[in-house]
Amino acid sequence: MKDAIVTPWEVKGNIDYDKVVKQFGVSKIDPILLERIQKITGELHPFLRRNIFFAHRDLQFILDQYEKGNKFFLYTGRAPSSHTHLGHIVPWLFTKWLQDKFDVDLWFQFPDEEKFLFKRDLTLADTEKYTYENMLDVIALGFNPEKTHFLIDTKHAGIMFPEAIKVAKLINFSTAKAAFGFDNEQNIGAIFYTSMQAVPAFLPSVLQKKNIPCLIPHAIDQDPHFRVSRDVIPKLGYYKPASIQCRFLPGLGGMQEDGKMSGSSGDNATIYTVDDPKTVKNKINKYAFSGGQTSVEEHRRLGGNPDIDVAYQWLTFFEEDDEKLREIYHAYKSGAMLSGEIKKILIDKINTFLAVHQQQREKAKKKLPQYLYQPLC
Amino acid sequence: MKDAIVTPWEVKGNIDYDKVVKQFGVSKIDPILLERIQKITGELHPFLRRNIFFAHRDLQFILDQYEKGNKFFLYTGRAPSSHTHLGHIVPWLFTKWLQDKFDVDLWFQFPDEEKFLFKRDLTLADTEKYTYENMLDVIALGFNPEKTHFLIDTKHAGIMFPEAIKVAKLINFSTAKAAFGFDNEQNIGAIFYTSMQAVPAFLPSVLQKKNIPCLIPHAIDQDPHFRVSRDVIPKLGYYKPASIQCRFLPGLGGMQEDGKMSGSSGDNATIYTVDDPKTVKNKINKYAFSGGQTSVEEHRRLGGNPDIDVAYQWLTFFEEDDEKLREIYHAYKSGAMLSGEIKKILIDKINTFLAVHQQQREKAKKKLPQYLYQPLC
Repeated sequence: MKDAIVTPWEVKGNIDYDKVVKQFGVSKIDPILLERIQKITGELHPFLRRNIFFAHRDLQFILDQYEKGNKFFLYTGRAPSSHTHLGHIVPWLFTKWLQDKFDVDLWFQFPDEEKFLFKRDLTLADTEKYTYENMLDVIALGFNPEKTHFLIDTKHAGIMFPEAIKVAKLINFSTAKAAFGFDNEQNIGAIFYTSMQAVPAFLPSVLQKKNIPCLIPHAIDQDPHFRVSRDVIPKLGYYKPASIQCRFLPGLGGMQEDGKMSGSSGDNATIYTVDDPKTVKNKINKYAFSGGQTSVEEHRRLGGNPDIDVAYQWLTFFEEDDEKLREIYHAYKSGAMLSGEIKKILIDKINTFLAVHQQQREKAKKKLPQYLYQPLC
Repeated sequence: MKDAIVTPWEVKGNIDYDKVVKQFGVSKIDPILLERIQKITGELHPFLRRNIFFAHRDLQFILDQYEKGNKFFLYTGRAPSSHTHLGHIVPWLFTKWLQDKFDVDLWFQFPDEEKFLFKRDLTLADTEKYTYENMLDVIALGFNPEKTHFLIDTKHAGIMFPEAIKVAKLINFSTAKAAFGFDNEQNIGAIFYTSMQAVPAFLPSVLQKKNIPCLIPHAIDQDPHFRVSRDVIPKLGYYKPASIQCRFLPGLGGMQEDGKMSGSSGDNATIYTVDDPKTVKNKINKYAFSGGQTSVEEHRRLGGNPDIDVAYQWLTFFEEDDEKLREIYHAYKSGAMLSGEIKKILIDKINTFLAVHQQQREKAKKKLPQYLYQPLC
């Protein structure tokens, strides 16, 4: 089996998350930390119970500050290069839960220039379109409009660029090269970009003229950016941002093939939030990698393998009820539940979610101005 | 004699301008081109007659377009890291003449982030202060307020950054390295910077939604920026910017020591526009390198050498009357004029200029808003 690749630009292969923890230098979320979170929030989000959010940096510091009455703010983002797919919303769902439980502000960055700079054929017209589409998905999840602030890099450059240069002055090419694997053919905009990704981690402190702790929920591939900016931001006089990292929702093709579901690995590996029920059904039936046996008879006799079955794996993300999930696991493993049946459960689950989501997405069009940080500049 | 160094960050040594022309690949301004300019403008600025503006790129194209009724705009700038000195205003005086003669718009960039990014100890508070001070000097020279537009990179980043990323995507680190001599220790803001310097060369075309030719008057050390951006800008659909280059006003220490007068080579090598008459007198008397002999007797017998005498060299920049200049040359060379006398002529010339300039500089404080491009964003 080939080694997995996990960088902000590429995720490939069957990821060994224990290895990633060591390589990246993040800390695992352990039962003691979970207990501490539960004491404050009253319950644990399924993504915490199931180890989907599995690692962190300095989360204890955030909780220490919170318990002293010093609230943090949340920062996450989405670089717009395609429609939103279900993998994207995993960290957003969790971020929404954090916002509700801790009653804190969220700064949501849309670094539209990132994808423009890193993808040869992507135009600014493309990124503008997808920024709009992706914003609708974020709004549809129900973030508090009074506490949620969207930053679009090209639209808020007037505020962000003067802060980004402070970061940029403290990062040299050697550091960027080591963190992101750049070579000399990399364009100078892409080289500069990480400075812009650092800004929302301290911008609220700049705007409010006080030092506010920052917690960044994100998928683990973005960690190199924050590894670099955590060294720089304290030199500017602000708290080192803390972070909490999740695993990837596997692509429909299975965990062996794609480490995460990505819009760039083809539409068939992916379910978009704008897909209609029939498309969802077809994609899951046709492309979701099955842990079942080759015939019904074999399946009844030997049982399925939920650990590699994508439908089951997806249910660990989207079926919130632990008891139900357990029943499905055992029924599938014993052979009582067939592959078609577990896929049917997933199809219903996703389509129920998307029916509501797509309604909210329509309503989001009117709500958008409430979420955009003002002034646009 | 050591080889001279001419880069946007450093100018050192006795510059052989013929060598620079070859190295940089610019074209000399020849008598045919001068005649063509004179036909349009009616007269030639002393900087053209005296070969102080000595080189260009594509100036014929600009004149072709102008004669067809397609006006160009001017673009020049000043990176604020110190008070303005007399060397800085050389290209500005010429730019003012071009604006008057051709009746065209001028976009004047203050890339305040450049000096912040390239000078370790310079803060954004410093660059903000000097941006203000330098703007007063530009206004004091009498540019047409209706046709002159100041861009300050950190204040206009909202307009400039979205254009800069288009440039940045087309320049890789290898190119920047070759053009500017960067190494891997260079910070990623400095690496990105040239993209921002490219923007005013096509921003008016973006804003007015039509392709307008651009002419950039500048000191020759800035050429590497435009060499790079001239390759990129046509790929964005705009005219390749043309340019016209000047020599440096030598430092008071003489041409052997400093290729140009620079604020960073010490206050004594430099006359600032805010210096009072006594300071000007003292600096010139004490520090201006003399081409005279060691005693009055020797001087009367052998004569002075105007070619290395800084007072004389400065008069070639600031004494507009060719006849007077010729007389001074011969009187000094023959020994009839002593070093103290030629210095006295220069002191009076500079102090007369600065008396008017400093008055205009005071008045400029009220005029500033007229020059700042709106919206500030």
